[in-house]
Amino acid sequence: MTTLEDYLEKNADRIDKVINRYFGDVHGDLFRASAHLLLAGGKRLRPVVVILAADAVRKGSSDDLIPAALALELTHNFTLIHDDIMDGDVTRRGVPTVHTVWDEPTAILAGDVLYAKAFEFICLSEADNLAKVHATKMLARTCAEICEGQSMDMAFEKRDDVSEMEYLEMVSKKTGVLYGASAAIGGMLAGATPVQADALYQFGVNSGIAFQIQDDLIDLLASTEKSGKDRASDIREGKQTLIAILAREKGIDLAPYRRSLSAEEIDGLIARLQGAGIIDTVREKAVERATIAKEALSILPDSEEKRLLGEIADYFIARGY
Amino acid sequence: MTTLEDYLEKNADRIDKVINRYFGDVHGDLFRASAHLLLAGGKRLRPVVVILAADAVRKGSSDDLIPAALALELTHNFTLIHDDIMDGDVTRRGVPTVHTVWDEPTAILAGDVLYAKAFEFICLSEADNLAKVHATKMLARTCAEICEGQSMDMAFEKRDDVSEMEYLEMVSKKTGVLYGASAAIGGMLAGATPVQADALYQFGVNSGIAFQIQDDLIDLLASTEKSGKDRASDIREGKQTLIAILAREKGIDLAPYRRSLSAEEIDGLIARLQGAGIIDTVREKAVERATIAKEALSILPDSEEKRLLGEIADYFIARGY
Repeated sequence: MTTLEDYLEKNADRIDKVINRYFGDVHGDLFRASAHLLLAGGKRLRPVVVILAADAVRKGSSDDLIPAALALELTHNFTLIHDDIMDGDVTRRGVPTVHTVWDEPTAILAGDVLYAKAFEFICLSEADNLAKVHATKMLARTCAEICEGQSMDMAFEKRDDVSEMEYLEMVSKKTGVLYGASAAIGGMLAGATPVQADALYQFGVNSGIAFQIQDDLIDLLASTEKSGKDRASDIREGKQTLIAILAREKGIDLAPYRRSLSAEEIDGLIARLQGAGIIDTVREKAVERATIAKEALSILPDSEEKRLLGEIADYFIARGY
Repeated sequence: MTTLEDYLEKNADRIDKVINRYFGDVHGDLFRASAHLLLAGGKRLRPVVVILAADAVRKGSSDDLIPAALALELTHNFTLIHDDIMDGDVTRRGVPTVHTVWDEPTAILAGDVLYAKAFEFICLSEADNLAKVHATKMLARTCAEICEGQSMDMAFEKRDDVSEMEYLEMVSKKTGVLYGASAAIGGMLAGATPVQADALYQFGVNSGIAFQIQDDLIDLLASTEKSGKDRASDIREGKQTLIAILAREKGIDLAPYRRSLSAEEIDGLIARLQGAGIIDTVREKAVERATIAKEALSILPDSEEKRLLGEIADYFIARGY
C-alpha cells in the first residue's frame, strides 16, 4: 500500500519534470520571470489533487491529464506572483520574489503569462471536449473568486471587526476554491458525473479551508525552525485570523500584542488563548472541515486514490508544530 | 447597403447593452473597479470583428456568439488596466485610470477578474464544443503574446536601435494578434474551416498592424483637437515608432526633439520628415498591411459582412488627421 508521503513525492517529481520540460529553458526576460517561482520548487499539491481525483473517478485516466494538473500549478503560481506584488513580499519558496528580481511591470506580465498558459494547458489535455469546456469555465470562475479572496484579505487588514463568517468566505475564496477546482477538474476531465464532480469540489474547498486554518495555528504554535516563519507573525501584524476573531469574541484584546514580542510573551499569550479554549476550538474547526471533505468523497467507489485523497485532507491538518 | 459607420454604431450599442447587463450594477469595490473602463465606452471594434467574421462564415451565426464578442472586449480591457499601471497613465477614455481611482493592488486584481471573465464568456457562447476548445486555446496564446508585446514595448523605451522588424513584431503582438484572435474566434465558433480561420486571423493581425502604424502617424500629424493627445508626444518621449526608426535609418536625428516642442518646431520637423519621404513611406506601409488584410479575406464567399470587414481595414488607415 502506497503511503501518502511516497505518493506525494513521486507525483511532485513527475510534475517537476513537466515543469522543467516547458519552463526550464525559456528565452527572454519575461518568460524567465514567469518560470522563476515555478522552478523554485513547491509541493505541487494542486496537481496531485488533480491526478488523484481523476484516477479516483477512472483508474489510469490521469496519464492523459498531466497538462491539466500543470494548469492548476500555473494558476497557483500566477496568483503568488501577483499577490507578492500587492503584499510587498520579498521572499517566497526561499528565493526572492519576481518583482524583486525584475520589477513590478515585469511581475504583472509574468503572472499574466502564466494565467494564459493555465487555460492553454487545460485545453491540451486528452479529454472529451465538453469536459474541457466545463473545466475551462470552472477554472475561470475560480480565478475570479481567488481575486475576490485576495481583495477581501487586503480589506480585512484595515478592519478589526471581521466575523468568523467573513473569514471563512475569504479563506474559502483565497485557498479553498483552487483545491476545489483541482479536484473537480481532475474528476470532470476523467468523465465524472456532475454529482461526482460536485462532491470532489466540496472535498477540495473544505480541505483548502482546513489547510488555511491549520496555517493560522502553525503561525502561532510552531517553532521558527519548523515553520520557517517568525512565530506569531500574524498576531504581531494584527491579521484577522480565526484565532484573532475568536479571541476578540471571548474578550481577549490582541491589540497590545501588535509589536515585537519576546518568546516569553508569546508563550504567555498561547497559555491565555489555551485557557480560554480558543486553540482547541480553532483546531476542532480545522478537523471539522477535513471531516466534511472526507465525507464528500463517500459517493466515489472505493479505491487507493480515494483513500489517498482522504489522507490529504488529514495531512493538511496534521502539518506540524 | 449598410454603411460601415452605421454598422459599427449599431453593434457598439448592442455590445454596450450586454456590458451594461453584466457589469452595469455590480457589487463590491473589486467588481466596480473591473467594470470602470468597460462602462466608460469605447468603439467595441474587437467585438464587431468577432460578429462580422462569424457572419461572414455563416450568416446569422453571430446571434449565438455575443458572449464571445464580449470576451474579446474584456480581454482588451484587462490589458488596458494592467498597461495603465505599468505605464503610469492617469487618464483613459476620458476617465481616470483604474489604479488612479482605486489603487495598484485593486487594479491588478480588477484586470485579473476581467481576464477570467473573458475565458468564461468564450465558453458561454452557443457553439460546437471542439470549436470552443480551439477558441479558448487561441485566446490563451493571444494573451501570452500580448504580454510579450507589452514587455517589448517597455524594453524599447530604453533603446534607440530598434529595427523595423522588431517594431513590427512588437505591434503585431501588442495590437495585431488580438484583432487576429477576434476574427479567427468569431469564424471558428461559427464553424469556419481551418483555412478560413487562418485567413481571418491573418486579416485581423494585419489590420491591427495597420491600425498601429496609423496611430503613429496620427500622433505626429493630427491636431490635438482631432486626436485628443498632444501633438508629437511620441517624438517628445523618444518612442521607437516606425517614423522614428525610418528617420534614424535616413540619418535624421530625433534626439534633439526629446523635449517640449513649439507648434513651429513640430511643423518644421514634419516638413523635414516629409522631405526625406518618411511620412509617405510609413503611410505606404500602413496601406500595404491593410491590403494584405483584405486579400486574406478573398477565400471567404462574398457577403455583406466580408465587405464590411474589408472596410474596417480601410477605416483603420483612414482614421483622421
